[in-house]
Amino acid sequence: MTIAKKAADGSPKVPEDGASAGGEPPALTPTEHVFAITEDQPLTLDSGGALAPVTIAYQTLGELNRDRSNAILVCHALTGDQYLAGKNPATGRPGWWETMVGPGKTLDTNRYFVICSNVLGGCMGTTGPKDIDPSTSEPFGLNFPVITIADMVRAQKRLIDSLSIEQLFCVTGGSMGGMQVLQWAANYPEAVYVAAPIATAARHSAQNIGFHEVGRQAIMADPDWHGGNYYAHKVVPKRGLAVARMAAHITYLSEAALQNKFDRNLQDRAEVSFGFDADFQVESYLRHQGSTFVDRFDANSYLYITRAMDYFDMAAEYGGVLANAFRTTSTEFCIVSFTSDWLYPTAENKAIVRALNAAAARVSFVEVESDKGHDAFLLDEPEMFTTLGGFLQAAAIRRGLA
Amino acid sequence: MTIAKKAADGSPKVPEDGASAGGEPPALTPTEHVFAITEDQPLTLDSGGALAPVTIAYQTLGELNRDRSNAILVCHALTGDQYLAGKNPATGRPGWWETMVGPGKTLDTNRYFVICSNVLGGCMGTTGPKDIDPSTSEPFGLNFPVITIADMVRAQKRLIDSLSIEQLFCVTGGSMGGMQVLQWAANYPEAVYVAAPIATAARHSAQNIGFHEVGRQAIMADPDWHGGNYYAHKVVPKRGLAVARMAAHITYLSEAALQNKFDRNLQDRAEVSFGFDADFQVESYLRHQGSTFVDRFDANSYLYITRAMDYFDMAAEYGGVLANAFRTTSTEFCIVSFTSDWLYPTAENKAIVRALNAAAARVSFVEVESDKGHDAFLLDEPEMFTTLGGFLQAAAIRRGLA
Repeated sequence: MTIAKKAADGSPKVPEDGASAGGEPPALTPTEHVFAITEDQPLTLDSGGALAPVTIAYQTLGELNRDRSNAILVCHALTGDQYLAGKNPATGRPGWWETMVGPGKTLDTNRYFVICSNVLGGCMGTTGPKDIDPSTSEPFGLNFPVITIADMVRAQKRLIDSLSIEQLFCVTGGSMGGMQVLQWAANYPEAVYVAAPIATAARHSAQNIGFHEVGRQAIMADPDWHGGNYYAHKVVPKRGLAVARMAAHITYLSEAALQNKFDRNLQDRAEVSFGFDADFQVESYLRHQGSTFVDRFDANSYLYITRAMDYFDMAAEYGGVLANAFRTTSTEFCIVSFTSDWLYPTAENKAIVRALNAAAARVSFVEVESDKGHDAFLLDEPEMFTTLGGFLQAAAIRRGLA
Repeated sequence: MTIAKKAADGSPKVPEDGASAGGEPPALTPTEHVFAITEDQPLTLDSGGALAPVTIAYQTLGELNRDRSNAILVCHALTGDQYLAGKNPATGRPGWWETMVGPGKTLDTNRYFVICSNVLGGCMGTTGPKDIDPSTSEPFGLNFPVITIADMVRAQKRLIDSLSIEQLFCVTGGSMGGMQVLQWAANYPEAVYVAAPIATAARHSAQNIGFHEVGRQAIMADPDWHGGNYYAHKVVPKRGLAVARMAAHITYLSEAALQNKFDRNLQDRAEVSFGFDADFQVESYLRHQGSTFVDRFDANSYLYITRAMDYFDMAAEYGGVLANAFRTTSTEFCIVSFTSDWLYPTAENKAIVRALNAAAARVSFVEVESDKGHDAFLLDEPEMFTTLGGFLQAAAIRRGLA
């Protein structure tokens, strides 16, 4: 069942052309909802157990058409959330994919019904480790089950079913969002008309697992983590979570991006301090990334979601052959990578393309030239917009949506 | 003054050919020494102050010739020490550059007098933050002055002067060792016959500073750090230092090296645990790297030495033009980089080559094909040995050492 919680604000309807002549573009009017999985039909988990109740918080933009054929599901990344457009209530900042989503944009909300849900294990309204465990009436903490990307997608499928959408026009997302896209296409091929995984991988590499483990160890090393039970102590493992975020953030950028943005520029000083202050802008920037992150993200969610990513290995689920995941697919794929992304480099994305080719699936692939690193998928990358826009337009014509 | 402290062990003299026929090669017999800078001639520091007394712990191998012309100074990296060969008393393991140094090896101890000193700010016998501040009779902690690569080299110069060595035949080292090599050649050109900086950079990049800052924040976030005064509390910020080491260790390897070594192999289990144990070998390996590091390295030394590296920017010391650092040099250079080193990539090493060319210095440069990442300079890399061996042999002939 779907419960319309509230419209995000009372701003006026977006005009059809998606842009007002002159002045500020009209504010987006996403709608927030929650969907509940109840005890009578608990969510099956890869770990063997089941979970209920589960709340899924999600946002929608645009209108579902009469045929229920124009829905696009956007899957968010590790530290993303359902607030892909409009003002994020936790940060007060614009949604994380406003470059991509909106009236007249690549994911055109005048045309498509765009859905984005907070992942299972998240901390923005969907059930996760900070929520109350009904069996103890205390927050789950580490009693929350370890989840997988497939579990996240299984929860999303329940949501999509609840909306009576038999087939999503498109499933898309970058990074961990791309992993969910692949899982959707593999597990529910009939429910995905086209799929656009961006800057992602079909399996987490040793280096990726290594960086995640650094972040988890930083969190667990913080005495305020209290074995995951910090809720009871009314503290937050801020220092550990901030360090985890700092380390991860470096991996989201390219060396060139850091160099271009910061070089060795000093922060508000003419000379180095011969001390351990943030002498360099890059230090100040990373500290800021760390300290603001802890205000909006739950440390245990960080543990659980990174774990889900580390466990992700689609080939392993299909007898060790990635192509087997897509043998029967009629979904058409568009895969985008970025030249300077060293977290999910082009080689990882090409491995998906090769598997799709081996499965005789229809796939187009573009490596976008960018010096922005992994985070390019969140930024203003015209070649990405053009590529996905053209792909969606052709698919919309075939699907009778044009 | 030089004080011969002890011979490392009583093992027999190494035979001239450097290898016994059959069986184990004979043990190397490095000699350990300490050199003292006394209050009457304190060490000048870039931060403006001066430091005395300063103890410098160093190791030598081979014999200084009558002309005092066969000395090779080896400069160690961030977490290295003077124990480049022979058994390291702190770890019980072989020296960190036994692939390179020894009888018949590239740095042939039958031919050269090899010197390696623990850097200023270190924790293996040279004065650093864990040592007693004479003004308080307590450990320095954060009262230790922030030092630079040039300060480290200035201390080494005092040591070399004390040995009445006017000109080192060669100064070499990798990573931070390479930075010291560059500083030696720039500041004391007449004292360096040839210089071989390996896998290094003339300035720390924004990304490098960023990774170091992550490590420092991890240490400082550990409540056991006590503002640097953990000595008084009889604790060690083990968890923070371990996290710092884990993050840094990933940067020392290439993605390919991690993939080849660990892939997604599980650690002593057939299936993932659906928990936060070290399911994957790469996690277990990194945890081990972290936990063993804290037994041998002082957390404050880690802060100070990383800071010295971050501050390193040779061009800035010479009017913003790196070539100016080498205008008057008659030193000959050999620079080696590794294809998969992303910490000090070939581009950074080539920037040094270009500056040397612009200064009309003699320089040879080899990029060694390796998938081992930055740590390749510590490993069995035949092309590195051949390159440096040939370079040293030609120089030895010119210098009358052949």
